[in-house]
Amino acid sequence: MGTTQLEPVPEPKYWHLKTVLSEALDSEFAVGEILPNERDLAARFGVARATLRQALEQLELEGRLQRRRGVGTTVAPPRVGVAVGTERHAWPGTAGDAWQPVDCVTAVPPAAVAAALEIPADEPVHTVRRTRTSHGQQVAAELLYIPATSVPDLSGIDTPSGAARARAVLRELQHLPLEDQDRAVELGSARADDARELDRLPGAPVLVVTTRFVASGRTAALSTATYRADTCRLTFGASGGVEIHEGPERRAS
Amino acid sequence: MGTTQLEPVPEPKYWHLKTVLSEALDSEFAVGEILPNERDLAARFGVARATLRQALEQLELEGRLQRRRGVGTTVAPPRVGVAVGTERHAWPGTAGDAWQPVDCVTAVPPAAVAAALEIPADEPVHTVRRTRTSHGQQVAAELLYIPATSVPDLSGIDTPSGAARARAVLRELQHLPLEDQDRAVELGSARADDARELDRLPGAPVLVVTTRFVASGRTAALSTATYRADTCRLTFGASGGVEIHEGPERRAS
Repeated sequence: MGTTQLEPVPEPKYWHLKTVLSEALDSEFAVGEILPNERDLAARFGVARATLRQALEQLELEGRLQRRRGVGTTVAPPRVGVAVGTERHAWPGTAGDAWQPVDCVTAVPPAAVAAALEIPADEPVHTVRRTRTSHGQQVAAELLYIPATSVPDLSGIDTPSGAARARAVLRELQHLPLEDQDRAVELGSARADDARELDRLPGAPVLVVTTRFVASGRTAALSTATYRADTCRLTFGASGGVEIHEGPERRAS
Repeated sequence: MGTTQLEPVPEPKYWHLKTVLSEALDSEFAVGEILPNERDLAARFGVARATLRQALEQLELEGRLQRRRGVGTTVAPPRVGVAVGTERHAWPGTAGDAWQPVDCVTAVPPAAVAAALEIPADEPVHTVRRTRTSHGQQVAAELLYIPATSVPDLSGIDTPSGAARARAVLRELQHLPLEDQDRAVELGSARADDARELDRLPGAPVLVVTTRFVASGRTAALSTATYRADTCRLTFGASGGVEIHEGPERRAS
């Protein structure tokens, strides 16, 4: 990247710098390439370090750059489309489910989860932990909360702990007739345990998908899934991913 | 808020501080209340300013705090559920659409939009700008790209500019049989113009929803909608919003 002087423009300086940097990423850098350090970049673009840092933060939010401790700032690959909503309602763990069960514990859920499940705040529920990978990388972590009343026949089954128990709980849950299912997507920050699993720093921006499974007119199970916001684009609808990005197309090399 | 000393814990300091601050917000502050300044907060919790700032950033990502230039940091109201996906497919502008048309121009779209619409990169398209309000506040801004071939009879109609022209374009579009519709949700940063409309700073985190409308086997229109990530929770499904938050319930006062 050669020396580039910015022309004076009415927009904030970091915003214009972001656009210039974005074009430089397209034309001069390959996916995975490590960017020069902040001091050098600031000098080349004739801006203050603080301005540069603001522009880099924008590009990170937009998924163009990844900053990783000990590695530096690298050019990010295009985001991966991860199918979240389908038109068909289905219990977790049924055929075609992209999630892998990891373990299952019985524990008192967060107060807000207990309220949504309409159970007493101190009532333990089956808590299934699952993970989801895409293109060989873990992209999401899920906690699935299932009250004892949703799996009444489980107690009669001698199931070991871990993933086997998670599968047994999900099989029992599937005996209920699923009436409805709705979802919400919001911005969140990665909890310490999710961050470790997702190879992110605690507090990194994540997309939190909350799914409510309705049976017999009540919430029979509740899932909170945490997706990496840097690498994932959540897709909804039968025909799969929407292949559109803001700004110029990115090149893989 | 009294002086609170943090006990030593294995998690990052700012992460533990975030939890403590979150509890203080629940018990001691009302929605809309302005927080003490950073210097005072840091002193009260016995942490460095940098640690405090990291914790405040987390709480902002989670929608607990809002930072606004000239106002300071305030306690955010609970996020508003905004219905994005329904099970029924519909063209923009049909009955029940929550969006208000603002204007319509004919312009060359971004390269990625042209590629998704499978039109030449220099072909102008109808670009309808719409806004969406919820509880009296603008929560989202949309650009809707419609190639001339999707509205073939428009040229015969004498429509003025502005919102009236936008409505005329959408009425023409509705003559096509809508075959399919899919969506993607991803993290983005607010463009300068969207930021102004949404009362945010340029570069603030936003949720970008891209919707593809399919007719006659091709993409007949493409929408990119930018939602405030601080105040919105996007909901999908027939039964409306999922009323669940991570962590303790928030109190309105």
